[in-house]
Amino acid sequence: MGKITTVSPFAPEKLARLPAIDGVRFATAEAGIRYKDRTDLMVAVMEPGTVAAGVLTQSKTCSAPVLLCRENLAKGKARILVVNSGNANAFTGMKGREAVEATVAAAAAAAGCKPNKVYVSSTGVIGEPMDVTKFTPMLAELAKKAKANAFEDAARAIMTTDTYPKVATRKVDLDGVKVTINGFCKGAGMIAPDMATMLCYIFTDAAISHKLLQNLVSEHAETTFNCMTVDGDTSTSDTCLAFATGTAAKRGQEPINKKSDKRLAVFGAAFHSLMRDLAIQVAKDGEGLSKFVTFEITGAESFKAARTIARACANSPILKAAIAGEDPNWGRVVMAVGKSGEAADRDKLTIWFGEHCVARNGERAEEYVEATVAAYMKNREILIRADVGVGKASATVWTCDLTHDYISINADYRS
Amino acid sequence: MGKITTVSPFAPEKLARLPAIDGVRFATAEAGIRYKDRTDLMVAVMEPGTVAAGVLTQSKTCSAPVLLCRENLAKGKARILVVNSGNANAFTGMKGREAVEATVAAAAAAAGCKPNKVYVSSTGVIGEPMDVTKFTPMLAELAKKAKANAFEDAARAIMTTDTYPKVATRKVDLDGVKVTINGFCKGAGMIAPDMATMLCYIFTDAAISHKLLQNLVSEHAETTFNCMTVDGDTSTSDTCLAFATGTAAKRGQEPINKKSDKRLAVFGAAFHSLMRDLAIQVAKDGEGLSKFVTFEITGAESFKAARTIARACANSPILKAAIAGEDPNWGRVVMAVGKSGEAADRDKLTIWFGEHCVARNGERAEEYVEATVAAYMKNREILIRADVGVGKASATVWTCDLTHDYISINADYRS
Repeated sequence: MGKITTVSPFAPEKLARLPAIDGVRFATAEAGIRYKDRTDLMVAVMEPGTVAAGVLTQSKTCSAPVLLCRENLAKGKARILVVNSGNANAFTGMKGREAVEATVAAAAAAAGCKPNKVYVSSTGVIGEPMDVTKFTPMLAELAKKAKANAFEDAARAIMTTDTYPKVATRKVDLDGVKVTINGFCKGAGMIAPDMATMLCYIFTDAAISHKLLQNLVSEHAETTFNCMTVDGDTSTSDTCLAFATGTAAKRGQEPINKKSDKRLAVFGAAFHSLMRDLAIQVAKDGEGLSKFVTFEITGAESFKAARTIARACANSPILKAAIAGEDPNWGRVVMAVGKSGEAADRDKLTIWFGEHCVARNGERAEEYVEATVAAYMKNREILIRADVGVGKASATVWTCDLTHDYISINADYRS
Repeated sequence: MGKITTVSPFAPEKLARLPAIDGVRFATAEAGIRYKDRTDLMVAVMEPGTVAAGVLTQSKTCSAPVLLCRENLAKGKARILVVNSGNANAFTGMKGREAVEATVAAAAAAAGCKPNKVYVSSTGVIGEPMDVTKFTPMLAELAKKAKANAFEDAARAIMTTDTYPKVATRKVDLDGVKVTINGFCKGAGMIAPDMATMLCYIFTDAAISHKLLQNLVSEHAETTFNCMTVDGDTSTSDTCLAFATGTAAKRGQEPINKKSDKRLAVFGAAFHSLMRDLAIQVAKDGEGLSKFVTFEITGAESFKAARTIARACANSPILKAAIAGEDPNWGRVVMAVGKSGEAADRDKLTIWFGEHCVARNGERAEEYVEATVAAYMKNREILIRADVGVGKASATVWTCDLTHDYISINADYRS
């Protein structure tokens, strides 16, 4: 990928401070896989008893590490996670599988666990064979020196074209026992997650079964990461993994093992909130962006239909370029709604830019004053709403505009 | 839409000269709908007996003129076609329908025909009410002074962000009688035709029934206009109409009225060739392009699957930006194949850039030399082929790269 030209205008002035989570420790290193003078390797070591859940890319050309995660998620036990940036180990054939096997062997030895408790992710260039000997000899030492208080370092080590690390934390009270959920993830191009985002890791000390944890990840990915897009390009490596150490049980938290458990709702709400936060952070660091854009579609036949329409808007180059140009070109919203293929009643279609109704019942709104809406477009955060007039379902999709910098970043020669 | 910055590098040095077609006459005018100092109105007057066929956008927010064409195509008779540029008369509600009705009334009077033999198209800005009184008073005079030898003028009057008019002509020998097929069309952004292209008009003097003409247009649109994309954004106004005056019957051409007629194959082949030519010309004038790109997908389960995969490549911003940057980033082809949702065998996937095999059987090809493929990327016309290894079907999709100029053109404020 091309070089990073500027920092996203949405980069937080101060990163959220993530508290330690009992049972998880992190270490990072400069393995020199592709980048120089920065960390590119991250290891998370988890206590025995940690359960894992996750969602992975639906891409038909998914990477070798994605296949490993899919296999090991079936049992849902975890002891160690190894992530590198700089090389995606995708489309690397037999060599790619061997690279994963070598990583798993070294990681299992480092954590003193079975190979089926190891998770691996890789992000970066597609199609380059990866030399894992650059980091496999480091794993034992990294596992030993891993520290609990290192979420930010971990988030930095997995970045590619990201201009800032994306972290989030939530606290939940489960019958008097406070548990923590921490997460971090990366973007920033080739982002249109289909079942998960590029790379996202969530850790909690809550005691919860891996099946229920899986339900939460699957359910909330649909309305968070799968409602976010930078460029409509679904990666080969999308991975969202959640790990629960269960160490809160030591502090008296009764494990959550049943679907009927009422605490699932409160825990799930915090989970959703954290995933949504991270998804929005990815959109806010979309390659080359100048504006963060939210599309809210209402009046659709179903959530999926609403999301398809919202994605059609959020992936339209001609609409995203207009937004970059601060042009309230709502005709392009009409176009995107029309092309989505989902049911929409043209003659009931109503569109708002921010609080300004620009079109109502199939034509320009009477109160529309172009200068007012043009002034609204100067904002850094833009909300575009459309009611398509055929049903009661809705969906929200987050994205960014399409700028010259996106072209520069992606037209830049890789080497 | 934004201003035109430069002329496409693919603009022909000399436009093809289209011969007159017996039974069709053209006139153009400067109606001042939006543009200044250029023609923006085109009228085609056709002899009694002319049959019409067409394919129209599948957009759920299609324009008022599209609805009129759909209605009148049912009977398939034509005497006059009125096309304006500068305003799409799309998403204009009741006012839009009234504008079409007023145009139809004036055009029917001008041609001395029934309203159901009138066809209307509009292209330009979406959502602006259109003042048809700017041109309806002109129609009678234009119909009178219309001339047979004016295809180029007609093609120029319907342009929006196009940098050159797109015209094509074919001759067919039907049992010793030479018939002509002429066509012209326009692009250049919001182009991802779904059943037709933005605006395309085809004229022939051949005697053929409107049903068979319709079959030809529908069949060949699938492999020509529907295999071309500039930005993945399907317009509200896509219209491809074909008119056959039947005047070749006067020179002894036996009318083609039956599906079993053997002359349909040769006539159809010329029709396909002309539509393909025009579709490629639209891609070659894609907004802001620097390169013309062809994606050929083989080894797919069906033509539609192959086309979906080819479109996923042709609409990928990250891949198109890499091509603009002359980066042979074939990993992004792997990504696009994977995200298409169609069946593909990652471990049999083979990819060529021009004649250079870059990946074979799921990994980088042994003979791959980056410098060689990088040199190939300097070409103005790029061919990318991929065999997805699951079947025998194939499809070809034409597109262009994604450049800074596309952003400039579409981020430019409309007024």
